[in-house]
Amino acid sequence: MTDMSIEAAVEFAPFEVPAGTAVGAAMRELNLPNKGDNAIVCVQNASGELKDLSHVPEEAATFTPVPANTELGRSVIRHSCAHVLAQAVQAEFPGTKLGIGPAIEDGFYYDFDVAEPFTPEDLKTLEKRMKKIIKQGQKFVRGVYASQEEAAEDLKDEPYKLELINDKGNVDPNSDEATEVGAGELTHYDNVNPRTGEVEWHDLCRGPHVPTTKYLPAFSLTRSSAAYWRGDQNNAGLQRVYGTAWESKEKLDQYLTMLEEAEKRDHRRLGNELDLFSFPDEVGSGLPVFHPDGGIVRMTMEQHSRERHVAAGYSFVNTPHLTKGDLFKKSGHLDWYADGMFPPMKLDGEVDDEGNVTKQPVDYYAKPMNCPMHNLIFDSRGRSYRELPLRLFEFGTVYRYEKSGVVHGLTRARGFTQDDAHIYCTEEQLEEELTSVLEFIISLLQDYGLDDFYLELSTKDPNKYIGDDEIWERSTSILESVAKKSGLELVPDPAGAAFYGPKISVQARDAIGRTWQMSTVQLDFNLPERFDLTYTASDGQKKRPVMIHRALFGSIERFFGVLLEHYAGAFPAWLAPHQVVGIPVADAFADHLDGVVAKLREHGVRAEVDHSDDRMQKKIRTHTTGKVPFMLLAGERDVEAGAVSFRFLDGTQINGVPVDEAVSIITEWVNAKRNEQPSEDNVAAQRQ
Amino acid sequence: MTDMSIEAAVEFAPFEVPAGTAVGAAMRELNLPNKGDNAIVCVQNASGELKDLSHVPEEAATFTPVPANTELGRSVIRHSCAHVLAQAVQAEFPGTKLGIGPAIEDGFYYDFDVAEPFTPEDLKTLEKRMKKIIKQGQKFVRGVYASQEEAAEDLKDEPYKLELINDKGNVDPNSDEATEVGAGELTHYDNVNPRTGEVEWHDLCRGPHVPTTKYLPAFSLTRSSAAYWRGDQNNAGLQRVYGTAWESKEKLDQYLTMLEEAEKRDHRRLGNELDLFSFPDEVGSGLPVFHPDGGIVRMTMEQHSRERHVAAGYSFVNTPHLTKGDLFKKSGHLDWYADGMFPPMKLDGEVDDEGNVTKQPVDYYAKPMNCPMHNLIFDSRGRSYRELPLRLFEFGTVYRYEKSGVVHGLTRARGFTQDDAHIYCTEEQLEEELTSVLEFIISLLQDYGLDDFYLELSTKDPNKYIGDDEIWERSTSILESVAKKSGLELVPDPAGAAFYGPKISVQARDAIGRTWQMSTVQLDFNLPERFDLTYTASDGQKKRPVMIHRALFGSIERFFGVLLEHYAGAFPAWLAPHQVVGIPVADAFADHLDGVVAKLREHGVRAEVDHSDDRMQKKIRTHTTGKVPFMLLAGERDVEAGAVSFRFLDGTQINGVPVDEAVSIITEWVNAKRNEQPSEDNVAAQRQ
Repeated sequence: MTDMSIEAAVEFAPFEVPAGTAVGAAMRELNLPNKGDNAIVCVQNASGELKDLSHVPEEAATFTPVPANTELGRSVIRHSCAHVLAQAVQAEFPGTKLGIGPAIEDGFYYDFDVAEPFTPEDLKTLEKRMKKIIKQGQKFVRGVYASQEEAAEDLKDEPYKLELINDKGNVDPNSDEATEVGAGELTHYDNVNPRTGEVEWHDLCRGPHVPTTKYLPAFSLTRSSAAYWRGDQNNAGLQRVYGTAWESKEKLDQYLTMLEEAEKRDHRRLGNELDLFSFPDEVGSGLPVFHPDGGIVRMTMEQHSRERHVAAGYSFVNTPHLTKGDLFKKSGHLDWYADGMFPPMKLDGEVDDEGNVTKQPVDYYAKPMNCPMHNLIFDSRGRSYRELPLRLFEFGTVYRYEKSGVVHGLTRARGFTQDDAHIYCTEEQLEEELTSVLEFIISLLQDYGLDDFYLELSTKDPNKYIGDDEIWERSTSILESVAKKSGLELVPDPAGAAFYGPKISVQARDAIGRTWQMSTVQLDFNLPERFDLTYTASDGQKKRPVMIHRALFGSIERFFGVLLEHYAGAFPAWLAPHQVVGIPVADAFADHLDGVVAKLREHGVRAEVDHSDDRMQKKIRTHTTGKVPFMLLAGERDVEAGAVSFRFLDGTQINGVPVDEAVSIITEWVNAKRNEQPSEDNVAAQRQ
Repeated sequence: MTDMSIEAAVEFAPFEVPAGTAVGAAMRELNLPNKGDNAIVCVQNASGELKDLSHVPEEAATFTPVPANTELGRSVIRHSCAHVLAQAVQAEFPGTKLGIGPAIEDGFYYDFDVAEPFTPEDLKTLEKRMKKIIKQGQKFVRGVYASQEEAAEDLKDEPYKLELINDKGNVDPNSDEATEVGAGELTHYDNVNPRTGEVEWHDLCRGPHVPTTKYLPAFSLTRSSAAYWRGDQNNAGLQRVYGTAWESKEKLDQYLTMLEEAEKRDHRRLGNELDLFSFPDEVGSGLPVFHPDGGIVRMTMEQHSRERHVAAGYSFVNTPHLTKGDLFKKSGHLDWYADGMFPPMKLDGEVDDEGNVTKQPVDYYAKPMNCPMHNLIFDSRGRSYRELPLRLFEFGTVYRYEKSGVVHGLTRARGFTQDDAHIYCTEEQLEEELTSVLEFIISLLQDYGLDDFYLELSTKDPNKYIGDDEIWERSTSILESVAKKSGLELVPDPAGAAFYGPKISVQARDAIGRTWQMSTVQLDFNLPERFDLTYTASDGQKKRPVMIHRALFGSIERFFGVLLEHYAGAFPAWLAPHQVVGIPVADAFADHLDGVVAKLREHGVRAEVDHSDDRMQKKIRTHTTGKVPFMLLAGERDVEAGAVSFRFLDGTQINGVPVDEAVSIITEWVNAKRNEQPSEDNVAAQRQ
């Protein structure tokens, strides 16, 4: 299931469909304006349910069309494409049993019980067969089983479908299985040949689907992998085929190009190639080790963040990574977050010869969050309103036992360092504080050359929250107003809030258009209660402070990973592990460069001379691959003129720059923390 | 037992004692020169054993006198004093059973099985009784039991002594119990009244002792506490009385003054008073939480250390706090260090219905050391001799499960952050590298105003070491030569090395003369073998690098605690959490100070104005107690003149300093990282 919300389509105008008329027919009749491509399904406004365009309401009702070029429309295209894939597999590999086939982010998959794993050639064969089916313009026709028995009889050769039918009612509505069976009646979708009217293939399915396969203009099968029935490794092993599908060839090509680019930028690959970090087997999955070149980048990021936080009035605290379980009992984490934590370190109790307990057993835990510790600091003495807002900041390394399937390089690790702060303020201070936090976030992300953002506002889940409604409403409306004032696009995430308070998250788009959730600003109505936090107001009364959790990078590791992909490994000079490498045209000129490098180092620039035995061209290749922003060459003419020649990553050069000028160009560039890569043009511009 | 070594006495001239003459008599006859007070025991040179001065050698032999004013001499005085204490207790509290009574660092204790805990009044009574005994000049007379049975019969009313007699042979020679029984014959010491010749009291004891109680000129009982027989809480509960004793009243007074001063400077008390850190119950013993004011000091210390390490050519790495046990199996820590570690986090394995293991159980551990992780980084790719020395540095937080009796504030914590580096170099580079490491250490400690150091050289324990003798000899002699070149006092610590290599430790004396072990430089012949670390030498051969462990602060927490005691809470301005506080003489002048503070902040100075409702004198008291180095006052005259008045912690003032000059005085003072506290004189000197 994708997590696209119905809201994405709501901006399209709703319209009235008379009783007994198909929605699609009514649309055509009304000649409705349509922002994107053709509509492919619709939302029944009263129920919020998605329906096929062939749906015929029994009574007049209002519907809103969902065009193909929306996330919701694409997820329907992808689900329909999964059906076509399954049809193709059963045609090419007779006897294959079907698992499930939902839409997922940017694509779809279908699981099959098949004798042999699919080869890349198999995928090509399947693509061909799918194109043939699509060309026929087969219709997707919905049918309702009269009973569970009828469904079971119809699908008696499909054991996995049978299991779902029997399990109906127990299927988690948020699971991939819910694509097939839901809470309502059992339905099937038939792929009907438009010429012959014959049912070519059919599948247990809740729908909805595109009207015909003609609405599937662009797809690609991307890979196959092993999977387990219902994700449980004690179940049968299946073969999963992944694909992607879009509303146009152009969009598909864009996506495939982006995938290729993303593959090149994969931070795990770059981290290895550039010797930045590793995940040694002896240490364990999700626990990164930063090598010297990664360590210096990380330290520079931390240093920059530290300076900005000092300037922004944060107080720096420091808390241990291990604690007695008592703390997480008090905070409640052991009740609702224990699954996400590493298991306890159990210290046995002791009993003397008479059976008296002389020492209680104690459980220690690695902390998954810093907030309970910061609450202890707030609560370590009486607090006055004069001290608020109190902003406690820590580079706090936390440990969370993420499932192994979820762990992914630096962007989803089991140990990571949050640039974590907890702000305690009065209700009156909340709006001003949130405004400045949001400005601070955007400004800090911009320091790294990110400049395309939108906000997501996660609001109350009516079935799961604590605290009173009035506080939720008031603070949600403050969050919303602060978000709107920022001028950034605001995407609602209804019912997406944690039980303890609403949240704004900042999403950033990277150099190839991918969206990353970076920063979060989370209100918390729970912890101040649990820790009974109070301050003395100006009237002498004890009051409860409002608590804001905020992490700007999310975590240093994750931000490091995102930046590495954003920059495709070529860190801006201020972050680059090797800012300057001197490359002598021949050994005789190395001394000259040693002198230049010594001057640069005096200015704090990370500079060195490549004294290896390689020839100059090889050295240029090495340091171009190593993404060194400033390569300084020196040959006879340079040495005679007391100059150096700049060589840039894009292959451009500036020759014969006097040494002192070169030193000041580089020093200024680094100190200004410029994010673009230096090249002939922009360095020449700086010289003027 | 104190860990004083025989060596302390060896500088006194040895002399020959004829057969049948008591050592003391021979000394008097020879009228031996004596550097300090009277000699009180002696060392038999051939055996290295300590003997009473009343000892009569059967054959002529060489002895060296041990004067009272040496650490060894003092430990004998203290042990004799413990006897006098026990004698007094049995006189004042008849029926009391004796535990043991050894000398310890700076004093002694004796354990008693007594009905009620001793009160402070009891201690006074005991002191009085002890003085009476001492005044009598009772002789300590050694006697030998003919057999174990005779000893048991003699001490049949002392159950704890009986246990030691029966356990003879099993008593750990390094334990406190060894004060009473050793490997040789069983002996007792009788306190003999010189007038009557009567034995007033006696005790099972190995000795030696001072000749008479007249050699006990200065002692004090300091406190009493609960203890367990043989330190095991399953055994009987005893009452321990602590005391101290010295060779002169002057020395005792110095020590008691130092104790009082140390009590005032106790970093745990100052940490609480100055709101720097705490040890919350919910987190657990030995796990400190740094509050904002402690956090900023800590961050400043780290920042300074970071800058110096960058300049010294260290590479910054970063490794997780948790790891699979595999790493510590590989390093060997699980074999020889498991007791010092927190217990494992056990992740269960999984077994499917057929009993096949589908997931192995895994143990994760909190790391007690960073070195194994740094070895993984060294070993993450091939290394060339060109890269050596490779200096991997990390602020690495480690966790060690210290026994609860040992945990002590920040100076002995269970979680602490080492300023830890591992240096990998060739054998040829070892001497130069060690020399620069030692210079670096001394220079960094001097940055904090510590300037009184000595070195300790821990050499091979012949019974417990790995690696070949030649390497030990060569590297020990390099360490020794490097240590000597430093010009610092060098104290040998024979057999004190860890099994894997020799070590230099740097001991620093603080403002009240106490010695703290700060930095260690440890060679390691073990880990490079276990991790099979190699580099490619210039001749293409694979070679094993030499590995140096070094931590300069020891840990940030410990160094923080030591500095806090050294400065008695008054951090130098560059470290102080609040560098400047503005105190208006009346509210009307607060604006003026706000302006001054804003200018200081622009220069990165931590400055604020006290806007509270308190009156000026109260504010001055508050910030004097808070140890703020620069208090700036402003009254009418200051405002009119565009000036401020300086107020210093010693109560001195400089009035009417123009604002711009004041800002530059403070900024320069802070940036220069001056360690003395500013006062009228030294600030006036800076103005000239």
